[in-house]
Amino acid sequence: MSHRDHTRRISVGGVPLGGGAPVTVQSMTNVPAHDPAAILAQVRELAAAGCDIVRLAVPDRAAVSAFARVREESPLPLVADIHFDYKLALDALAAGADKIRINPGNIGAPERVKAVADACARRGVPIRIGVNGGSLEQEILQRFGNGPRALAESALRHIRLLEQADFADICVSIKSSDVARTVEAYRLLAQQVDYPLHLGVTETGTPYMGLVKSAAGIGAMLLEGLGDTIRVSLTAPPAEEVRAGIAILKAVGLRRHGVNIVSCPTCGRTQIDLIALAQTVESALSDIDAPLTVAVMGCVVNGPGEAREADYGLAGGKGTGVLFRKGTVMGKFPEGELVPALERMIREDLREKEK
Amino acid sequence: MSHRDHTRRISVGGVPLGGGAPVTVQSMTNVPAHDPAAILAQVRELAAAGCDIVRLAVPDRAAVSAFARVREESPLPLVADIHFDYKLALDALAAGADKIRINPGNIGAPERVKAVADACARRGVPIRIGVNGGSLEQEILQRFGNGPRALAESALRHIRLLEQADFADICVSIKSSDVARTVEAYRLLAQQVDYPLHLGVTETGTPYMGLVKSAAGIGAMLLEGLGDTIRVSLTAPPAEEVRAGIAILKAVGLRRHGVNIVSCPTCGRTQIDLIALAQTVESALSDIDAPLTVAVMGCVVNGPGEAREADYGLAGGKGTGVLFRKGTVMGKFPEGELVPALERMIREDLREKEK
Repeated sequence: MSHRDHTRRISVGGVPLGGGAPVTVQSMTNVPAHDPAAILAQVRELAAAGCDIVRLAVPDRAAVSAFARVREESPLPLVADIHFDYKLALDALAAGADKIRINPGNIGAPERVKAVADACARRGVPIRIGVNGGSLEQEILQRFGNGPRALAESALRHIRLLEQADFADICVSIKSSDVARTVEAYRLLAQQVDYPLHLGVTETGTPYMGLVKSAAGIGAMLLEGLGDTIRVSLTAPPAEEVRAGIAILKAVGLRRHGVNIVSCPTCGRTQIDLIALAQTVESALSDIDAPLTVAVMGCVVNGPGEAREADYGLAGGKGTGVLFRKGTVMGKFPEGELVPALERMIREDLREKEK
Repeated sequence: MSHRDHTRRISVGGVPLGGGAPVTVQSMTNVPAHDPAAILAQVRELAAAGCDIVRLAVPDRAAVSAFARVREESPLPLVADIHFDYKLALDALAAGADKIRINPGNIGAPERVKAVADACARRGVPIRIGVNGGSLEQEILQRFGNGPRALAESALRHIRLLEQADFADICVSIKSSDVARTVEAYRLLAQQVDYPLHLGVTETGTPYMGLVKSAAGIGAMLLEGLGDTIRVSLTAPPAEEVRAGIAILKAVGLRRHGVNIVSCPTCGRTQIDLIALAQTVESALSDIDAPLTVAVMGCVVNGPGEAREADYGLAGGKGTGVLFRKGTVMGKFPEGELVPALERMIREDLREKEK
């Protein structure tokens, strides 16, 4: 049984997180924290991209006002990202935050932690503890070095502070910019707590390497059963983070919504432009919500059999190709008519099913 | 101890594979198998991209002649990809193949398997068994269903055939288009054999999803200590497969060659164009071979500390920024001079080290 199946269930503005709930995708706005119109436009863009929960930096009081205004019209639950200042946390709660991201060890006196925990409890708002490899406590670094153990121990320390304030509506992240260290830290933490885990690798660099680091790190953890919500951190527009997050969930089989293209790598035997064909099929079917696997194969002889697990497929030869459904060949077409015929077959089947 | 540290060591044209050797990156040509000039040009392109081993489809005798001609000038070891025909395998060996990919269960009579195994043994050429989820034996499917167990059992059956022919110079792949099934299949196989594993997820679809599926699947296995060589299968130009393979190895910390950029995701606090800046830094330093971590941070106050593990970095504020080395600020610069100054500092340090 995987860790995510028995984590505590928390709720972020009505979106369930943990206890076997579907793994959600998060992102963070990057427009100025004092510009509610720009923030709201970006939140809507993220919602359209498929984001489930959005985080906003709340660095000061003016940002709290902006947060409150965005909250009134936001289509998605909003997380207030607070550093150090417990009063800002209280203000963000009053402004309607659906979750607070704050590290209790940075707030100061226990009474302050208690004030935030109690205010959250009254409103049913959870807290995310967000440990970051770049800002570990000196004492932790001295005692545990700079490896995964330090990240996990820092998280446990913050967790205990909230537990001492009788608060357990928690989720936890422990991100570092090193993929292997991040994965190992989450493994260590998962052995010790049943709070839902917010997965991420931080400071991943440029979009290409960032995508690869995130897919490797988050993907590895998801495949081990860890992780209840994910945020891909890219130095790129936030909608790209959402696209990447959804792609990772699809890749590991945790989200099946929409068309999944399988296509063979081209080889010295391929006689059609498979690369262009796969792209054309993907965009032709991009509006379909049903969970379908569609194969695009480069070999008329072996293609239908090799892709017999796909719901539909096409296999192209020299200027011509075949369509197939669950491995059974349904007809032969000239290359130019393959994709339209495939699309027709799929859409007709979907209409049949809807009847 | 990870599986890859105690796999048998084999050699592919002088490139070690297994037994703790550095994990290598493979790809496959996709130009016509009968065009030696085109194949050689692509092999050279792959070598320039950082590929370690290249596979060529050898579908018939004419392709053997092409293989032989490419082999004479190839800068990289070449693998002959053979289906069914044991005579083609023998011919490819005579043509100088550095490794043969063939599944002994598909060759036919044991004498034929023995003939191929003996010819490989005489030349010191290893065999890769390449099981593919799309072409599993009917009997295996009936007995084990269509899950990871079927993939692993099919591989074990092929392995036994080679062992019965007294041949152990083997590596094994068991690819399917489903990431989770692929990972689980390799885990099962790794529990039973100490042959080096060739990792891959097959038929991964369009380049973006293909990259994500490969990074998640191959990355997860590498992080568990599985895998001695990798091939990313993309429906894209083969050089993209090499780029992706190297990126995955870097992401999980198995290749440290060159500059690793860490950069924070932008947020509502960011006041510079961090996305463009990270890209500029990456391309300015792309020729450097030394393993350096360079941070590109969006916050002058927190950046140097958060990125203190980076060898170098810059942190940009509003129109200005600082450079730092191992967390220590080295100077303040206008935004436009940050990257040139960073580059100068790094190159001067590298020259100093070379002295």
